[in-house]
Amino acid sequence: MAQSVVRAVVVGATGYGGAEVVRLLLGHPGVEVVGVTSSRLAGTPLRKECPWLATDLQLSSFDPATVDADVVFLCQESGFAMEHAEEILSQARIVDLSADFRLTSETDFAEFYGRPHTAKHLPAVYGLPEIGKRDAIRSASLVANPGCYPTASVLALKPLVDAELLNGVPVIDAKSGVSGAGRGKATTDYLFSELATSFKAYGIIGHRHQPEIEEQAGCKVRFSPHLVPMPRGLEATVHAPVREVSVDVLQEIFREAYASERFVNLVDAIPSTKQVTGSNRCDISVSYDARLGFAVITSVIDNLGKGAAGQAVQNMNLMFDFPEATGLSVHGLWP
Amino acid sequence: MAQSVVRAVVVGATGYGGAEVVRLLLGHPGVEVVGVTSSRLAGTPLRKECPWLATDLQLSSFDPATVDADVVFLCQESGFAMEHAEEILSQARIVDLSADFRLTSETDFAEFYGRPHTAKHLPAVYGLPEIGKRDAIRSASLVANPGCYPTASVLALKPLVDAELLNGVPVIDAKSGVSGAGRGKATTDYLFSELATSFKAYGIIGHRHQPEIEEQAGCKVRFSPHLVPMPRGLEATVHAPVREVSVDVLQEIFREAYASERFVNLVDAIPSTKQVTGSNRCDISVSYDARLGFAVITSVIDNLGKGAAGQAVQNMNLMFDFPEATGLSVHGLWP
Amino acid sequence: MAQSVVRAVVVGATGYGGAEVVRLLLGHPGVEVVGVTSSRLAGTPLRKECPWLATDLQLSSFDPATVDADVVFLCQESGFAMEHAEEILSQARIVDLSADFRLTSETDFAEFYGRPHTAKHLPAVYGLPEIGKRDAIRSASLVANPGCYPTASVLALKPLVDAELLNGVPVIDAKSGVSGAGRGKATTDYLFSELATSFKAYGIIGHRHQPEIEEQAGCKVRFSPHLVPMPRGLEATVHAPVREVSVDVLQEIFREAYASERFVNLVDAIPSTKQVTGSNRCDISVSYDARLGFAVITSVIDNLGKGAAGQAVQNMNLMFDFPEATGLSVHGLWP
Amino acid sequence: MAQSVVRAVVVGATGYGGAEVVRLLLGHPGVEVVGVTSSRLAGTPLRKECPWLATDLQLSSFDPATVDADVVFLCQESGFAMEHAEEILSQARIVDLSADFRLTSETDFAEFYGRPHTAKHLPAVYGLPEIGKRDAIRSASLVANPGCYPTASVLALKPLVDAELLNGVPVIDAKSGVSGAGRGKATTDYLFSELATSFKAYGIIGHRHQPEIEEQAGCKVRFSPHLVPMPRGLEATVHAPVREVSVDVLQEIFREAYASERFVNLVDAIPSTKQVTGSNRCDISVSYDARLGFAVITSVIDNLGKGAAGQAVQNMNLMFDFPEATGLSVHGLWP
Repeated sequence: MAQSVVRAVVVGATGYGGAEVVRLLLGHPGVEVVGVTSSRLAGTPLRKECPWLATDLQLSSFDPATVDADVVFLCQESGFAMEHAEEILSQARIVDLSADFRLTSETDFAEFYGRPHTAKHLPAVYGLPEIGKRDAIRSASLVANPGCYPTASVLALKPLVDAELLNGVPVIDAKSGVSGAGRGKATTDYLFSELATSFKAYGIIGHRHQPEIEEQAGCKVRFSPHLVPMPRGLEATVHAPVREVSVDVLQEIFREAYASERFVNLVDAIPSTKQVTGSNRCDISVSYDARLGFAVITSVIDNLGKGAAGQAVQNMNLMFDFPEATGLSVHGLWP
Repeated sequence: MAQSVVRAVVVGATGYGGAEVVRLLLGHPGVEVVGVTSSRLAGTPLRKECPWLATDLQLSSFDPATVDADVVFLCQESGFAMEHAEEILSQARIVDLSADFRLTSETDFAEFYGRPHTAKHLPAVYGLPEIGKRDAIRSASLVANPGCYPTASVLALKPLVDAELLNGVPVIDAKSGVSGAGRGKATTDYLFSELATSFKAYGIIGHRHQPEIEEQAGCKVRFSPHLVPMPRGLEATVHAPVREVSVDVLQEIFREAYASERFVNLVDAIPSTKQVTGSNRCDISVSYDARLGFAVITSVIDNLGKGAAGQAVQNMNLMFDFPEATGLSVHGLWP
Repeated sequence: MAQSVVRAVVVGATGYGGAEVVRLLLGHPGVEVVGVTSSRLAGTPLRKECPWLATDLQLSSFDPATVDADVVFLCQESGFAMEHAEEILSQARIVDLSADFRLTSETDFAEFYGRPHTAKHLPAVYGLPEIGKRDAIRSASLVANPGCYPTASVLALKPLVDAELLNGVPVIDAKSGVSGAGRGKATTDYLFSELATSFKAYGIIGHRHQPEIEEQAGCKVRFSPHLVPMPRGLEATVHAPVREVSVDVLQEIFREAYASERFVNLVDAIPSTKQVTGSNRCDISVSYDARLGFAVITSVIDNLGKGAAGQAVQNMNLMFDFPEATGLSVHGLWP
Repeated sequence: MAQSVVRAVVVGATGYGGAEVVRLLLGHPGVEVVGVTSSRLAGTPLRKECPWLATDLQLSSFDPATVDADVVFLCQESGFAMEHAEEILSQARIVDLSADFRLTSETDFAEFYGRPHTAKHLPAVYGLPEIGKRDAIRSASLVANPGCYPTASVLALKPLVDAELLNGVPVIDAKSGVSGAGRGKATTDYLFSELATSFKAYGIIGHRHQPEIEEQAGCKVRFSPHLVPMPRGLEATVHAPVREVSVDVLQEIFREAYASERFVNLVDAIPSTKQVTGSNRCDISVSYDARLGFAVITSVIDNLGKGAAGQAVQNMNLMFDFPEATGLSVHGLWP
């Protein structure tokens, strides 16, 4: 049983990820939001910065030394969690939405994030419940909430790896809505007029999510992300060379892998990002290119839902013994 | 107190309005959806037509003669409710999302909907709770759920009328997202490629929502709607000639009018449609053009939320003694 | 006859307006672009900043003291033209795309632009050819290129004023694509994710384009602009109280007013902004609300075409005796 | 030298491809459009169907038996060209924008288009000028205008094949704006509200453009297309396993391949579809994943420009000895 009320603080509450955590928590029957923080905007009503949230919460500054809460959601740039987690953990449990604790490899962290890791001694658990770590999440003090691309990619790829079907390096061609860049990217490149009606690749070689995908999926991947002119949504198309198989067997592998999952579904029709907007769902389609020997998997999530805030709340539900779907929507918002 | 579980049928469940009613009801703790109907698609899983809804409900055909439910949401084109309401009412209460019972004037109905009204003897209540008809809604058997433009327009205009400030004909220049046209409008005009990055007026003279606005607001209005390249959202800008007044007095009038309302809010900054997307909220800003003597009111709603399905559920909550906000979101989905 | 080649400099070539002037001039058979300038980016290839322009032009800094050109297009924020026009005019003719020389009234300039006008002695001509000032433009040294809202609004309103039909204050409810805010507005408010699928009013009272419209149309107007989630395009809906008239007479007034104009057209169907995208056209529809006595005029332009750069080139064509449509498109880009 | 005036007929002038051909031809100094046809809409002014085209042309029906023109652009569904080309060719030359004459393999045609080819005896030339068939195009009577995906894909892949660098099956993950579906697809799936803010894969296995790409590139490919919520634009990301090489060598291969091409450019920054909108350009970026041995090429076109109508006019320019870029824009429209 969950304790009567979990008291939560959201650090970095005015970014897209943080504000979405707040939105979900405000609708969660077992949580009280006792703090929303912003270093820059302390003293301002949250609603002034986030007019979509009909709340009277006031932004405050965050002091890691005096955390009066059961759980802290860290929604900050990389570096913050690494610096403050130990102090916070002495007072509350943490769901960290940054990349600080996602990678096992210190070498990769240093290479891809451009600085040494300073808190490797802290025992973080990677918070992707559907790939077999639920018990670890339940008892974790510090959960590393997965990246958006890794969530969609690993859910699409892991069953192939587990079934030992791979026969070469999978290509993951992934596409994200613009909110993935965050709300702080107030530069010309992210202006509405620059991105509307435009599509492009970016981070073609060496994107930060590549080592995370490889660690969690358990194989090397050729990974490139793209930017789609939509605010939310993320799709990954995995072109995976596989040993000879049939489409029926392929689909059965995915169906079984996620048979008991409420948020991950094998679907018949190729899914669109729109059908999972606002939800915590990941819809997956499985095809087989028999001519060339490729499994082609597409998976869609809401990058701010199952790809960030929704998954963070799902992890919190596990940590605090709430039913896993509490406060989360399994339905998308359409149109 | 609400009865333990209200059993609901949604007639026309695959349209935008109907599917949104289903989505809201599936998240409503006091409602069981016992039927989702579609004359064309009976026998199909709802999820096949509406892949955003993670439900196993099957579409069936609707038989007005055998309604086994407490409440029926009619989400059909004009004409259907008028024809079947009497038979349904002998078995269940009705929230009608069509225009059939919105107008008091039979003459206007005949003129604007092109046919005589055939069920004027049925006692329908106009379901806009915030303009003073809550008790009537609570006890109503048949609620006429308001149109989207009238909801935004009347909420923006009524306080001026009630305060007897009008000094001429208000101009209501309203703008809607494309879902207002419905999901059945599968013609070239509504294709993505035709409407993306385009804005236009339509129905400049004599739009059907004009008499509805006039009846509910209590004054004549110059009304023209426009189509905005976004799926959801609706804004009305009311330019109302007024007697000499101050902006403070104007704002106080609106603040008082909606002081106890959870879903209608006077806001400081000019609101955007995005901030109410997915919610049942109406945000209103009040400005005063002292030079020319105009109050300029802008109001935003989600045309499928407070403008349709959300309001329908709000009305159902009143009819069945649920707290008025049950199953409805007061927060928008952003970005 | 035009001189063989007009040598042009574009000052502020990387903004939306400036780059569009460059694009048009690069396709103009009688113009050589001899300079593209940017104070911030001098030394950079223009194509690096504007990857849509397949040109080898290099950005330079602009020195008003040594202008080696026949015409200078000033595409800068308000204030720049006022400061430098006199010096430039001793060497070249000017088309100024800023607001500096648009207003006749010094009082209004000071009020709406927040500073005194310092160059009122310079003889600027307002460059809206279709409202009767072609000869003045032809011989002008300094043309004040109109604002985007005034262009659409004045073309929609002036014929009513000239016909002495007005019977009250017209309401102009105008809507613009986001590029109207310029490319330099790199703030959170203009991020893709903030504006996509959103519509809102802004500048409800006292927008800077209001006095410009009033001067050129010759009447007071109630004017409010709105922001549409599209990069280009601008629509104005004019609700004008008029003396009793017929729709036929109204339309005839507009048809006659623009009978010989290539770029301004009375159209039968209500026009969309999309149909004029990329063109220098203004399409106008005329309706009559006989019940309440309003003419309702809608007019659409491309805010960067007829609303800025296209009109600037049209003015240059007049100034240098090119056929007026040279280098301009009369067709829109669709879809 | 081109003949003084080429007289052109556009068959299927109201679709997206056909109307874009008309738009380009109306701006072409050496062409007179003598006919625009539509079987369904004969007798209607073209402008009524295509309000973006400011022309007085009237739609007529097309009679293949009496073609009074120098060139006919066939913008019809597959099947039409095959049936009528022989008769038309006795009177005029043809640029066929359908797929009828794109494939060399009769077997593939029958498999992918579901019917036997009935006009294989006609000597069609594949009209992608930049891959070495210019002379054949110049003298061709019948040019098969390439598909949109094949244009972007082949331009991105061919230099790798020619340099004998391939070391496995390339994955082409391609994405198109919605206009690729055509203007006739007036079904629910293509409604604005269904596609706005959504991204999805489609045709994952066995898309019709796959054999076309394979024939022209000269290698097998794993190809899947996706739908992007934008009206125009197409991107292909090619993940090609290659023998060990350096990024410099890779880029040099592409630079040389297109050194003399005006419309195909190797660019430094990863290109966006927006930067080629409205142009006939293809921008290409070349990256190298040294870790896994992949060349990663991205290429962008306007699917209606270089991907359809622009390329058709480019081919016509070759056929009638116009300078190749006549009537075509090398600059994109932005924003």
